[in-house]
Amino acid sequence: MHKVIYDTDPGVDDAMALLFLHRHPEIDLLGITTVFGNASVETTTRNALFLKREWNIPAPVSKGASVTIDSSRAERPWPAMVHGENGLGDIDVPETIDLPLDPRPAHRFIIDTVRAHPGEVRLVAVGRMTNLALALKEDPEIATLAKDVVIMGGNFYVPGNVSPVAEANIHGDPEAADIVMTAPWKVAVIGLDVTAITTMSRSYLGEMAARGDKAVKQLDALSQSYIDFYKHAVEDGMMVHDSCACVYVVVPELFSSISGAVRVVCGGIADGQTIVRPDARRFPPDGAWDGLPSQVVCTGIESEKVLDLIRNTLLAA
Amino acid sequence: MHKVIYDTDPGVDDAMALLFLHRHPEIDLLGITTVFGNASVETTTRNALFLKREWNIPAPVSKGASVTIDSSRAERPWPAMVHGENGLGDIDVPETIDLPLDPRPAHRFIIDTVRAHPGEVRLVAVGRMTNLALALKEDPEIATLAKDVVIMGGNFYVPGNVSPVAEANIHGDPEAADIVMTAPWKVAVIGLDVTAITTMSRSYLGEMAARGDKAVKQLDALSQSYIDFYKHAVEDGMMVHDSCACVYVVVPELFSSISGAVRVVCGGIADGQTIVRPDARRFPPDGAWDGLPSQVVCTGIESEKVLDLIRNTLLAA
Repeated sequence: MHKVIYDTDPGVDDAMALLFLHRHPEIDLLGITTVFGNASVETTTRNALFLKREWNIPAPVSKGASVTIDSSRAERPWPAMVHGENGLGDIDVPETIDLPLDPRPAHRFIIDTVRAHPGEVRLVAVGRMTNLALALKEDPEIATLAKDVVIMGGNFYVPGNVSPVAEANIHGDPEAADIVMTAPWKVAVIGLDVTAITTMSRSYLGEMAARGDKAVKQLDALSQSYIDFYKHAVEDGMMVHDSCACVYVVVPELFSSISGAVRVVCGGIADGQTIVRPDARRFPPDGAWDGLPSQVVCTGIESEKVLDLIRNTLLAA
Repeated sequence: MHKVIYDTDPGVDDAMALLFLHRHPEIDLLGITTVFGNASVETTTRNALFLKREWNIPAPVSKGASVTIDSSRAERPWPAMVHGENGLGDIDVPETIDLPLDPRPAHRFIIDTVRAHPGEVRLVAVGRMTNLALALKEDPEIATLAKDVVIMGGNFYVPGNVSPVAEANIHGDPEAADIVMTAPWKVAVIGLDVTAITTMSRSYLGEMAARGDKAVKQLDALSQSYIDFYKHAVEDGMMVHDSCACVYVVVPELFSSISGAVRVVCGGIADGQTIVRPDARRFPPDGAWDGLPSQVVCTGIESEKVLDLIRNTLLAA
């Protein structure tokens, strides 16, 4: 069993990934930590509680960061045109959910849970990296105590989605992402190189909903406006960004990758860009890179098998 | 006829490109301007004069920049492991060549020649962009008087060759390259996305030399250590970087491209990286990009046809 903490900002594709984690038989979901990004942290936390209640997820929800780790960064409007005003495609969601939150802030929940299961916890982070960076700052030893980190974020040899070279999760807190990428733990980076080519069509999702239970039907409903938004890039479907990272947790063989140090550009026209220095290539000595841990950067994916695994997992309930 | 000024730092692949320009029947080579890069400007200028003399090239040689346009940038050692200590693969080249230089500095030669043939001159720049940037600073109107600019440099959706994200010509003077890319003229960027997959094998070049005249045999000789250097990246051959840009001048149909504003990162871990903001994609308003001219960024190439055109042109003498 994979012990997972899911750090998330639900978020439409976050919701699908959450249901995948909840339903996959080899995943033990220890907790859900929320972060700002697709909407404010108040909204993403409310959404996490909503999905926990609707889908009977036992894992606790812990509320996380509301601003970037460098608080001087200017905040931009939430991407309501992507995830809806309410972060869940503007389906009907109550203002408040009457369920208790974990009393700890997300980064503290992460520290405590990693320390409670040394060497076992896999951090699956599909929003901005702020909570993970805060956890590392407060307790750097967790880098050696977590099993690994799997993130959805970044882009390496393909364009970005919020700037020509930056992806939204990383661009939303570049300093935090640079801290996470360069810490001495094992990070697998699932970015746009693989997620942008892993698209689920509206009809594929609709057929899942027809066969599935209430949860899958809800997923279908909350994804409709997201699919509408994606029409500039996808024929009639959605990129399943966050679910790709969750699939990596259980079947990494469906991905090809390169290894190398990873850094994030902070500031300037490339702000938020992820860069890998592949171990297989030679570059002149460079203090910005030398000595950093080697991470796993996914550059290839068997998209059809990934989609089938998502479907089979969601329908297995 | 294409009226061409060739801005170059010979350089092994520069030499092949020079012979291509000299021998292609549709190219009228108006001048050769030199720049530092593959070696000091003293060495690249000597090499240009050497090749002019050896190959009976009528075009004048004008000596150009010896330092970056921002003179506070630290210079690094010349890449002798790539182009040899003498910039031409360490074949026998005299210390000095007894031929006159054009009396003007390269950027002034460029300005005068562009002004002498308004709307006609094509600037083919395959080294650092310093001379072109100096010309633009001294006489911004040349941007509207040159026909276009074709450069070998940069990389967009592939790794760099001197840093994880930067190519040597651009990394060698990022500020100059940003000036050139954002000026109101038409720039076609032939970067590593296409040149790194256009490789001429040692045997292909050897067969050319066997059939060719003295000039082609010299090319073969001066390319041998360059091919040795490339063994980490190419089976047994060389990337013909600069010749790709020259082929684009006469047969742009052999390339596929995207259009968009292009900028260069100046400073930080992405120093010297080229970025395109594709016109076909939507991004939030951004003062760093909005209003810049749309350039042509080559992302695909018919490599075999490019190599055949190079061979046929060099052997047509």
